[in-house]
Amino acid sequence: MEYRIATISGDGIGPEIVREAKKVLDKVGQKYGHNFNYEEVLMGGISIDTYGVPLTDEALETAKKSDAVLLGAVGGNVGNSRWYDVAPNLRPEAGLLAIRKGLNLFANIRPAYLYNDLAGACPLKQEIIGDGFDMVIVRELTGGLYFGERHTETVNGVEQATDTLVYSEKEIRRVAIKAFEIAMKRKKKVTSVDKANVLDSSRLWRKVVAEVAKDYPEVTLENMLVDNCAMQLVMNPRQFDVILTENMFGDILSDEASMITGSIGMLSSASLNESKFGLYEPSHGSAPDIAGKDIANPIATILSAAMMLRFSFDLDKEADAIEDAVRKVLAEGYRTVDIMDEDKKQVGTTEMGNLICDRI
Amino acid sequence: MEYRIATISGDGIGPEIVREAKKVLDKVGQKYGHNFNYEEVLMGGISIDTYGVPLTDEALETAKKSDAVLLGAVGGNVGNSRWYDVAPNLRPEAGLLAIRKGLNLFANIRPAYLYNDLAGACPLKQEIIGDGFDMVIVRELTGGLYFGERHTETVNGVEQATDTLVYSEKEIRRVAIKAFEIAMKRKKKVTSVDKANVLDSSRLWRKVVAEVAKDYPEVTLENMLVDNCAMQLVMNPRQFDVILTENMFGDILSDEASMITGSIGMLSSASLNESKFGLYEPSHGSAPDIAGKDIANPIATILSAAMMLRFSFDLDKEADAIEDAVRKVLAEGYRTVDIMDEDKKQVGTTEMGNLICDRI
Ligand SMILES: CC(C)[C@H](C(=O)O)[C@@H](O)C(=O)O
Ligand SMILES: CC(C)[C@H](C(=O)O)[C@@H](O)C(=O)O
Repeated sequence: MEYRIATISGDGIGPEIVREAKKVLDKVGQKYGHNFNYEEVLMGGISIDTYGVPLTDEALETAKKSDAVLLGAVGGNVGNSRWYDVAPNLRPEAGLLAIRKGLNLFANIRPAYLYNDLAGACPLKQEIIGDGFDMVIVRELTGGLYFGERHTETVNGVEQATDTLVYSEKEIRRVAIKAFEIAMKRKKKVTSVDKANVLDSSRLWRKVVAEVAKDYPEVTLENMLVDNCAMQLVMNPRQFDVILTENMFGDILSDEASMITGSIGMLSSASLNESKFGLYEPSHGSAPDIAGKDIANPIATILSAAMMLRFSFDLDKEADAIEDAVRKVLAEGYRTVDIMDEDKKQVGTTEMGNLICDRI
Repeated sequence: MEYRIATISGDGIGPEIVREAKKVLDKVGQKYGHNFNYEEVLMGGISIDTYGVPLTDEALETAKKSDAVLLGAVGGNVGNSRWYDVAPNLRPEAGLLAIRKGLNLFANIRPAYLYNDLAGACPLKQEIIGDGFDMVIVRELTGGLYFGERHTETVNGVEQATDTLVYSEKEIRRVAIKAFEIAMKRKKKVTSVDKANVLDSSRLWRKVVAEVAKDYPEVTLENMLVDNCAMQLVMNPRQFDVILTENMFGDILSDEASMITGSIGMLSSASLNESKFGLYEPSHGSAPDIAGKDIANPIATILSAAMMLRFSFDLDKEADAIEDAVRKVLAEGYRTVDIMDEDKKQVGTTEMGNLICDRI
């Protein structure tokens, strides 16, 4: 089969890790008889430098016409980034928000699991992690505070800023359905996280999620307040299977969850719309401090490519082949510096990509 | 001296832990020649049961006329609470929000530190906690999403809910000043946490905090995005001294931080207004499942009483006496069940209170 993949290398380590993921995809293509055609799209800092905006209409159109999008990373850490002192809509991150909205990618799927081989990197004590944990966060991605009306005004000489958090039944329902569908293929438990003791939007969230749950009688639904969830992730992460939450809470909790795995360089993500279309990217950022040094961990991006094969192209066997290859490389003791441990063999970005290719 | 303390025993374990804190205060009064006069105020579930509302105007007035408020806990866990299925403004938590706003308690001070004697309860690995950590979270408490306009409406047959996040320069400045004042007495570092790459309110937050920082040249100001902070708390909590943040982010991060200490039953908090007036309460909740069993840990409430002596009454010596007594009791090996460890002596709520009294 022929597949059109829009690649967004982006900024920082983005180009290096996307390059490795393409290499792995090509190896899969060779072996299983597929043709992956890539079209590079500029987004983020590199688009600002080239066109003055973080995402051009043409770039968005190219992404729309593709079968799926593979993204490295955009921007830099706020405070470090050379693009920070500009108007917000001219920052690299604005490109990310624009493409999420422009492609209607309302469901962000972020797996967080502890690799047995990497348990040493987990910041939690052994008695808490036990024999590991494996959860998925389903984060609403095109609503809430991220996309509500906002403005700054001066009232009686005092500056005042407003952001708006809006959710409609429809927005909640469609992402809840994704979470329950995912739970059906897993341990059949959904923890819906909100702040229903304070927010109207959370009360609507809770109501709609309960309605959706009726269509999935096999799935256990639990409601949890966001502050409690932030605690439970640290204290007892093994209780979770699928966490379903709104955009801002999902931003915070998914980063917390990825960190408790101790291997954020390993975690992939998918952002999906109603159809099979999706954008796939590592959970980590652009790490400008290590860019160009051939030391970044390409595995999160490679596993994101595997997610793409599975979710957007229904190529399960091919996705398995990538995931197996990653597991083998880890079991054989190869590590990039971010997950390096005593007695292991340290390799760079390119070599890690090659090792994975060789095992496909 | 005479002091008028409004006590709010509240729900769940509230009455038990407030009782122990009063016992300790009375011992301090005896020893140092002060008179603490208590007036009990109903709030939360018990107020709903008695008056049909979570806080009456009279109760608020009594609190206002006092020199300080000592609070146990109100409500229950959402989902468990028998008050949950009622209108939001009739829930126990609504009493807490009403008293915060009614008393203008805009600065919530939540210390999070690891007790050496309790390091075993910390969920983080030894290599991360090193020789311990000690931070304070300063959370804005009367603005943001908690108090913005909210409503639920039906637009073209689709239900839609809106919450509003508003901050003014003035609201940001006054809480920032509290944070910098606290940092001056500590390690002189403020980490201001926001989501300035997305929210207008966060950009105003960042700007005003930077202005306030100019008046404190000795204090280092660092800005951090909320998602990153949720990660850093787990990965490297020792980097923090004072975290300053808005209401909802503070709710989430302070619970995460208290959990990584492993001893939420030990953590006190103060909610302050412009003057010396404050409301003092444990960081933990009402724990309805263990109410009435004489097993709750009263130390967080006892330490909250110590904070009250220090912040509202300028009784530093007396506050030290309580804190020293708590340290002694821990060093001698006494533990309530929540912090129990091998080889330690398990005691109940009342006995823990007595042991602390005896050491004052
Ligand atoms: C870069 C930023 C706008 C983005 C977000 O907040 O969604 C990032 O943190 C993420 O989680 O993908
Ligand atoms: C009970 C609830 C409304 C409250 C809050 O969200 O502020 C609590 O979680 C807290 O942190 O004091």
